[in-house]
Amino acid sequence: MPVLQFWYEFASTYSYPAAMRINEKAISYGVEVSWQPFLLGPIFKGFGWNTSPFNLQPEKGRYMWRDLERICAKLDLPPMRKPNPFPQNSLKAARIALCLPDAEPRAMFSQGIFDAQFAWLLPIDDDRVLTDILMRQDFPAEDIMAKSAEAKTKQALKSQVDRAQQLGLFGAPSFVTSDSEMFWGNDRLEDALEWQARL
Amino acid sequence: MPVLQFWYEFASTYSYPAAMRINEKAISYGVEVSWQPFLLGPIFKGFGWNTSPFNLQPEKGRYMWRDLERICAKLDLPPMRKPNPFPQNSLKAARIALCLPDAEPRAMFSQGIFDAQFAWLLPIDDDRVLTDILMRQDFPAEDIMAKSAEAKTKQALKSQVDRAQQLGLFGAPSFVTSDSEMFWGNDRLEDALEWQARL
Repeated sequence: MPVLQFWYEFASTYSYPAAMRINEKAISYGVEVSWQPFLLGPIFKGFGWNTSPFNLQPEKGRYMWRDLERICAKLDLPPMRKPNPFPQNSLKAARIALCLPDAEPRAMFSQGIFDAQFAWLLPIDDDRVLTDILMRQDFPAEDIMAKSAEAKTKQALKSQVDRAQQLGLFGAPSFVTSDSEMFWGNDRLEDALEWQARL
Repeated sequence: MPVLQFWYEFASTYSYPAAMRINEKAISYGVEVSWQPFLLGPIFKGFGWNTSPFNLQPEKGRYMWRDLERICAKLDLPPMRKPNPFPQNSLKAARIALCLPDAEPRAMFSQGIFDAQFAWLLPIDDDRVLTDILMRQDFPAEDIMAKSAEAKTKQALKSQVDRAQQLGLFGAPSFVTSDSEMFWGNDRLEDALEWQARL
């Protein structure tokens, strides 16, 4: 079965609607999705940026929040809210996600993080918030929290970022098909699924 | 009748598919379009950029050309090609466009410029190319070329850029509805038309 890679960053605003809708959409295209969390921070550093481009360009930032209000309304998602600080520190959430099997458990946890962050304004670098999300989804929270702090997990996330850079990713969400075609942005989800479905 | 403002920059790659399809799309939404050429250069300077962001970020640049290949194929436009140099100097073309009445004559000339630049790789700052495009569309080319170099026209383009900045535009194409809702990008054309049609 054809597998589409879904590359997302927990602090990325446009990754949120993509994460909430990708699984349902993928079913309608007959495509399987592999959930690939990564960090944009190290990639942005390569561009000489020390924060989100939406902070570096206030005009674009203001537009982005309005654009996402409209997108969430269209998708019947709860109104999108701006976390403080923005962007949130997504390091721990990404490590935990990598400790969960791809795709369904990782997808469930990831949607929980996005919902907590953008609908509930909960700090996603807070151990209690992270533990809560794991527990509510019946994961062995203590074990996973411990495993997420191990050197092996830290290395696994570093490898993810290396892979992202090798793929030429520069933003999130991004979608990579099994023939290495890359699509960037929540707006390209349908195009990516259509491409993958044809392979 | 509701009028949607279409803000475009001749050197902007994503302005090309938007310019080629907006009039036909607008008819199906019952919306009238006002063609508003402007320059991104002065706006980018405000961000500290001295060229296109697609040159400043080579990864994004490579992606953009591939993305537009896919978009043009979907729209049955000729294959998109990369002008040399990129971006082209769009100053003269923007001044000429402002000398032509909005909307149909200005739209025709503007589509001619985009076609010449991205399908035929002609230099759009060359007086012969500009004159040819005007003549092929039966405009009084000599008169318009002369008018486009007048101080009044130069001032009109400066005012356009001022207006764009006041509207908070930071990229092209952008669409502004009659109730001041702003949409950015070729991807948002349908959303903008739908919004305008409801007013």
